[in-house]
Amino acid sequence: MKTGEMTIRIQFDEMKSVFNRILLKNGFSVEKAETCAVIFAVNSLEGVVSHGVNRFPRFVSNVRDGFVIPGNDPVPVKQSGAIEQWDGKLGPGPLNALIATDRAVEIAREHGIGMVALSNTNHWMRAGYYGWHAAGKGYILMGWTNTDANMPAWGAREARLGNNPMVFAVPYENKAIVLDFAMTQFSYGKMETYRMAGEKLPFPGGFNSSGEMTDDPSGILEARRPLPIGYWKGAGLSLVLDILAVALTGGRSVKEITMTGTEYGLSQVFIAIDPNHLANFATLDDSIRRIIEDYKLSPPADSKTAVRYPGERIAELREENLRKGIVVLKEVWEMVSGLESY
Amino acid sequence: MKTGEMTIRIQFDEMKSVFNRILLKNGFSVEKAETCAVIFAVNSLEGVVSHGVNRFPRFVSNVRDGFVIPGNDPVPVKQSGAIEQWDGKLGPGPLNALIATDRAVEIAREHGIGMVALSNTNHWMRAGYYGWHAAGKGYILMGWTNTDANMPAWGAREARLGNNPMVFAVPYENKAIVLDFAMTQFSYGKMETYRMAGEKLPFPGGFNSSGEMTDDPSGILEARRPLPIGYWKGAGLSLVLDILAVALTGGRSVKEITMTGTEYGLSQVFIAIDPNHLANFATLDDSIRRIIEDYKLSPPADSKTAVRYPGERIAELREENLRKGIVVLKEVWEMVSGLESY
Repeated sequence: MKTGEMTIRIQFDEMKSVFNRILLKNGFSVEKAETCAVIFAVNSLEGVVSHGVNRFPRFVSNVRDGFVIPGNDPVPVKQSGAIEQWDGKLGPGPLNALIATDRAVEIAREHGIGMVALSNTNHWMRAGYYGWHAAGKGYILMGWTNTDANMPAWGAREARLGNNPMVFAVPYENKAIVLDFAMTQFSYGKMETYRMAGEKLPFPGGFNSSGEMTDDPSGILEARRPLPIGYWKGAGLSLVLDILAVALTGGRSVKEITMTGTEYGLSQVFIAIDPNHLANFATLDDSIRRIIEDYKLSPPADSKTAVRYPGERIAELREENLRKGIVVLKEVWEMVSGLESY
Repeated sequence: MKTGEMTIRIQFDEMKSVFNRILLKNGFSVEKAETCAVIFAVNSLEGVVSHGVNRFPRFVSNVRDGFVIPGNDPVPVKQSGAIEQWDGKLGPGPLNALIATDRAVEIAREHGIGMVALSNTNHWMRAGYYGWHAAGKGYILMGWTNTDANMPAWGAREARLGNNPMVFAVPYENKAIVLDFAMTQFSYGKMETYRMAGEKLPFPGGFNSSGEMTDDPSGILEARRPLPIGYWKGAGLSLVLDILAVALTGGRSVKEITMTGTEYGLSQVFIAIDPNHLANFATLDDSIRRIIEDYKLSPPADSKTAVRYPGERIAELREENLRKGIVVLKEVWEMVSGLESY
């Protein structure tokens, strides 16, 4: 995204404080407002403005409309061995997801592996956040969420699948390898960012209303026909992740979420693994380093594209944006600031 | 694939018997020969000839060359809570993977979830087989393997990533939802099948030696530049799956496998979940059925492509091929038959 007339830079602390004050006015306790403000601000800091500052106004409006209930906490439904099912009670998605991640980590500490399946929760904003969080504590995390229907099955016209984002995170030295991806080639948030910036997608990302494959984000957003990653493979994975989310949580499916007209009451799965339980724990960083070093030896196909591992760019952006401030569309920041007085 | 001059149909029992006799001549015990013959024959029966009958001669040659040691069994290295690490001792990949799946299932029965991480094993042929196996016993399975390097990083020219196939399986009524996919848009096996049949791929599947994206399987196989699913996403997932496979097993990485020149000594992960531990166990089939029914309502984009769930076509092919015989390239069947007298 070009900085310039349309964008400004906001310092991390300022952004977090603005979020915090708005959340306090909207029924969040002091502690919850702070945690939630941190998550939205960190997502923005790490370059994922689509699920940070850009999404914040919609989050607040979901709170005001009663779809997200800031006073509610997740409660355990069933515990059995190393798996637990929790009911999110429609509390704030980011807070519920953080609690579920921490609980999966605790189970993993005891059993080596632990799963928390969370029903009736809300949009967690960004899968990667929970990956970085778990990895920061030294744990491996795999997790996914379902969403409302926003992607057609392969060979179909109508959006009946979610983009169901997934995260894989592995602790590595004092950082992490974190892969966070939706089943659409471009997430809706990303396509909205391109659209707001008036840019085309770098590759075809879906079909427009005339059924043509296109790199125009507006056409794809209008037709709601984003391309699944790997065509039939990503469409299949989306279906399987929804089936697993529903089976493991006992919560709502993509279809049931979609029927209500607002994306709330989601189903999410968190699986943590504690590397301390492994025989090779002492040499983990060395073996990961050898893989990364080999990976980085790949000669680039052209001078424009650097060969990076998942999460590497995030760490760079975090540094850069902490120093310079977070790039935000002026129009978005005005909308957010407006929420303070409303 | 067109049946006709180039192909014949072989009955399942005949194929299995031929495999069995060849394996007995190559150091397999009676029991191991039978189990291994079943896996190769079932893979073929279920339409995955690329990792069934087509691959059998290479498997036998790996046995003869000492890369696959039919007398060796996997042994436990470390057990801790619900996770176990095993050493595959370079035994036959399909047998090792079956044992690991069964062991993950046993751990899941006790703890709700169970993981087996298997080092020093060999090519498991087809991820889906173990998914069907676990689902047939009523368990959810997630698993993946690393491979030799056969796919470039995104933005790179040189193959330093594996296609690292992954499986997700969910029991459903008396069948299963099974998704089995490699990180390449088309697996090497599939591209070889197209090439042997003299056909183009249905979509561009990689780059040729001139760096052009192409649907010509020969050009892609020659350049070893298959397209990752979802471009950078599938490339990232491949890297993460290798890192996880190595971290969890303590075994060899894609790089280390590739350095030896022959694809052996792989690292694999099997995670099983026992739905019996879930509060909603009694209604699982109902909730999956509702998802599948909604999915099947998707209006097809054209008359050529049916909207199917992962595993649906497999069940159909199994029936059809049991009745009519398995379609095999004559050239392949002659090669297999030739192994009987060698």
